[in-house]
Amino acid sequence: MSQSVFAQRIQALRQAMQAHKVQACVVPTSDPHLSEYLPERWQGRQWLSGFEGSAGTLVVSDTYAGLWTDSRYWEQAEHDLQGTGITLMRAGQAGVPGPAAWLAEYLTPGERVSVDGQVLALQTYRQWQEVLSKKNIVLLTDIDVLNDVWTPRPALPQGTVFEHLAPFACRSRAQNLADVRAAMAEHQADWHWLSSLDDIAWLFNLRGNDVPYNPVFLAYALIGADTARLFVAPGKIAADLQERLLADGISIAPYDEAAGALACLPEGQALLLDPARSTVGTFGAAAFVDVVEAINPSQLFKSRKNAAEADHVRLTMEQDGAALCEFFAWFEAAQGRERITEITIDEQITAARSRRPNFVTPSFSTIAAFNANGAMPHYHATEQAHAVIDGNGLLLIDSGGQYLGGTTDITRVVPVGQVNDAQKRDYTAVLKGMIALSQAVFPCGTAAPLLDTIARMPIWQTGADYGHGTGHGVGYFMNVHEGPQSIAYRATINPNMAMEAGMITSNEPGLYRPGQWGIRIENLVLAVAGPQTEFGEFLQFETLTLCPIDTRCIDISLLSESERGWLNRYHEQVRERLLPWVEGGAKDWLLERTRAC
Amino acid sequence: MSQSVFAQRIQALRQAMQAHKVQACVVPTSDPHLSEYLPERWQGRQWLSGFEGSAGTLVVSDTYAGLWTDSRYWEQAEHDLQGTGITLMRAGQAGVPGPAAWLAEYLTPGERVSVDGQVLALQTYRQWQEVLSKKNIVLLTDIDVLNDVWTPRPALPQGTVFEHLAPFACRSRAQNLADVRAAMAEHQADWHWLSSLDDIAWLFNLRGNDVPYNPVFLAYALIGADTARLFVAPGKIAADLQERLLADGISIAPYDEAAGALACLPEGQALLLDPARSTVGTFGAAAFVDVVEAINPSQLFKSRKNAAEADHVRLTMEQDGAALCEFFAWFEAAQGRERITEITIDEQITAARSRRPNFVTPSFSTIAAFNANGAMPHYHATEQAHAVIDGNGLLLIDSGGQYLGGTTDITRVVPVGQVNDAQKRDYTAVLKGMIALSQAVFPCGTAAPLLDTIARMPIWQTGADYGHGTGHGVGYFMNVHEGPQSIAYRATINPNMAMEAGMITSNEPGLYRPGQWGIRIENLVLAVAGPQTEFGEFLQFETLTLCPIDTRCIDISLLSESERGWLNRYHEQVRERLLPWVEGGAKDWLLERTRAC
Repeated sequence: MSQSVFAQRIQALRQAMQAHKVQACVVPTSDPHLSEYLPERWQGRQWLSGFEGSAGTLVVSDTYAGLWTDSRYWEQAEHDLQGTGITLMRAGQAGVPGPAAWLAEYLTPGERVSVDGQVLALQTYRQWQEVLSKKNIVLLTDIDVLNDVWTPRPALPQGTVFEHLAPFACRSRAQNLADVRAAMAEHQADWHWLSSLDDIAWLFNLRGNDVPYNPVFLAYALIGADTARLFVAPGKIAADLQERLLADGISIAPYDEAAGALACLPEGQALLLDPARSTVGTFGAAAFVDVVEAINPSQLFKSRKNAAEADHVRLTMEQDGAALCEFFAWFEAAQGRERITEITIDEQITAARSRRPNFVTPSFSTIAAFNANGAMPHYHATEQAHAVIDGNGLLLIDSGGQYLGGTTDITRVVPVGQVNDAQKRDYTAVLKGMIALSQAVFPCGTAAPLLDTIARMPIWQTGADYGHGTGHGVGYFMNVHEGPQSIAYRATINPNMAMEAGMITSNEPGLYRPGQWGIRIENLVLAVAGPQTEFGEFLQFETLTLCPIDTRCIDISLLSESERGWLNRYHEQVRERLLPWVEGGAKDWLLERTRAC
Repeated sequence: MSQSVFAQRIQALRQAMQAHKVQACVVPTSDPHLSEYLPERWQGRQWLSGFEGSAGTLVVSDTYAGLWTDSRYWEQAEHDLQGTGITLMRAGQAGVPGPAAWLAEYLTPGERVSVDGQVLALQTYRQWQEVLSKKNIVLLTDIDVLNDVWTPRPALPQGTVFEHLAPFACRSRAQNLADVRAAMAEHQADWHWLSSLDDIAWLFNLRGNDVPYNPVFLAYALIGADTARLFVAPGKIAADLQERLLADGISIAPYDEAAGALACLPEGQALLLDPARSTVGTFGAAAFVDVVEAINPSQLFKSRKNAAEADHVRLTMEQDGAALCEFFAWFEAAQGRERITEITIDEQITAARSRRPNFVTPSFSTIAAFNANGAMPHYHATEQAHAVIDGNGLLLIDSGGQYLGGTTDITRVVPVGQVNDAQKRDYTAVLKGMIALSQAVFPCGTAAPLLDTIARMPIWQTGADYGHGTGHGVGYFMNVHEGPQSIAYRATINPNMAMEAGMITSNEPGLYRPGQWGIRIENLVLAVAGPQTEFGEFLQFETLTLCPIDTRCIDISLLSESERGWLNRYHEQVRERLLPWVEGGAKDWLLERTRAC
């Protein structure tokens, strides 16, 4: 698409702004559900600017257009914004103000900024409001200027909603509703509003495919003491499923009647609402009730997988690991015989998973990154730009699957040709960090961010570090990134960060040398009961992911006895559990790559 | 003292409350400088209640008197409060409201609570005000009801102020003032107010002895762009010192004129003030200026020891270590020959330090705690209640000294008679934690609370934990507890928690088995430059404390090669550096206790 198209769209937006008498308009990368992946209907920032990265905020005034995005996307944004007249604002760089600070500086008191409150996170709104109100700048959230110019605007996705069924669904809707209602009672709330799609899907044992990778569907939910309404577009839920939901006391209403229902709640009653998972629009619609702000109780319930769910995940990991054995066996055999690119790898790994029972989709877009590409933690190969796997170096593959019985996410780094000593030292440091966290024992309820240091320590010891967190929560046939826990030292420590039994979290330290190579080793781990002593209850991690960690990249002399012991025990378990599921080359590969070191 | 005396004093307070028309009165454990140790004049909470612990808040209403104190003091408070009519409120226990929440519950709207604003921390005031205002309860801070009934109230301490001189003082007053003024300029502040005694002593290279252990004196300071006023009671600073201060542009004013000077600052000018180190009284006196709230810049400067200070501390550690060799040599020789109690140990260890050059006073009250006493982290032997060192077990000794060239703080645990396997396992776990933190490498600026996990991990691994932080900042011939850094996971993470080169911090993991034994091993460590790489600048720790760690308590089989290596290298260094300073039995003891294991 010619980049002057975007300049024209910005110009059209400016005309609409004049009609609304607003001096600036902000278009965030966000939807009414504050999702990680946006349906096309809410990709207005991309439609306006041409910037294809998945995070960014566009600010347009009568004479200026700027796009704020973080360091992951600077290179891409520079490319995408050429010829659009839009300035790249490097968010996070010293001296670069945030959008709100920029607006406060640029506009004069009394001027008006608009942003669509239907997609603006309440917390962002509050921060901006604080900055802008100091300068007497008016922040309007009831105008969607973009809507005036975006014609035809993409429709809502029309994916069909399906039921997550037993044996894979291990909790009943009735039980989930009862748990949430008990939490509502604790908060003395008469009502509870949900806009976050994973919370809604979890609560009702429903799944969908309205966005890539996350098996969710567009909906809102409003729960009362003995009513439950699910707001979803007509036609998405089949009649028989509607009947089964009704039998559980859940009624279906049209998606676009959600805000109205919120506005009609009896005055003075109390509504439980999660400020981190609600937009200003939602908050505004709840004008007549007393809002009780707290994390969605379902976030906490959902994060703690029950025993049956954990069992399914263990079985799923066997299938996922077997798929990876097939993939890696192909990869090693194909080297030197056929042309392999980062794109081929994505295709092959997805194909291997697709042959496994109960596989649904990838759980995110595969990262296959060779050498220097691996040093960019969010690199994605494209048809236009990707590497051929050839010569010497390290290949990083981060991939995962959605299965009916769980969600997987795994990163491995494998050698291509010769691996040098510096690469081995880095790989070993990352492995030591991963093993340290795998072996950790800690009091029940320890704040997850405090565990980050454990994985980072061996990497710091070599004078290196990595710019991302060590672990994110992982759903159960649900979003591969879920809260509330986050093993990331930059995360704010609060009571919702407590590590509890049943939580599945990634364990993925890394080390990236720009222009050279990148290393990340990632397993999923389940928090399980550890020692119970006079000091209280402790947790430890059970490693769920089953796939060899390539020992050819390790400098064995750098491993302690304890670390080597862990690695050999891990490989023994991988071999035992995957052996029944592989044959031929995949079996040979498994046996070879799980040999003790 | 008969405990009915306290009941009478509470009764007298109630009468004074009636005269002031207040329905409740709060007496915190606090002074106008928010110090750790209070001059007697401000020990009103103890005078009223009889409770001798060093932390607690007394709340008195017309029909109720309650003392809030944390778990460290519950046993003592139960004893001290008997017969006083005062209820012990176990602060921190589930279901026990804090004083403000209790008042909000107990009082009726419109009623008045008084607390002396001169000693009430601003942050506490803000928290209470928030709770009480919701119930329309009035919080008065301009009445000191206690003062009406406490006659004669102890006078202010009259200790003489002295100069911290070269070579021990390694920064000039002029430089300190210039540094602070540069920070004031950054905050666009015309003035800077100091009430915290260590900040004042540091800024002017002055020391005093108005409270035990901390070499500080009662004062306030008010710094302008080219004026500096030190408010201190007449007679405390000799004429010649006053002249030298004047030569550096520092004028002396009476202590009791401080608040008046604050109130006379030109309207509309900006005053830099640390809300964590100021009282409501101070804040109220600064009514006409614009207050800029930030940490005292001197907190940051003071925490980063310069190279010359670090050199003095290294020499001081040699003397302190030599004193400990003499003490331990005596202790081992005396066992079985003379009666040794926890009290004797305090006397002997202080005597050994006193024989060393440049020793001034202990840096805190020695903890000598045998077996079960060691399981109480804040145990103090008294003439009435102390253990005789006899039989089998573990003796924990936590002690330190103020020297002109630095402040020391060390904990060692030594065997008495036989040590059992369980004790060895605990001791080894604590040692492993201490070694892990000693060997840590981490990015410059890492938040200190995140390092806590490193020391705790090996102890968690055994299903144990400890209830205190792992490390506190330590002054330079200054308070043994100083900020801003705190290696404690419960500490709030903020930018002032950043670990920086030059900081001295304790490294003191522990493990306490109530009724059995307690273990803590403590060294002081200096943050020094570590690797400098493409990932930035790293820090590591240089262990400053020089004293053998008793290897008879270690289960060597539980140490890794790396841990044993650290221990043997440490003992080699202890031996080399202390050998020149010890003779006779102390020398023999040093050689014996630093043998490689």
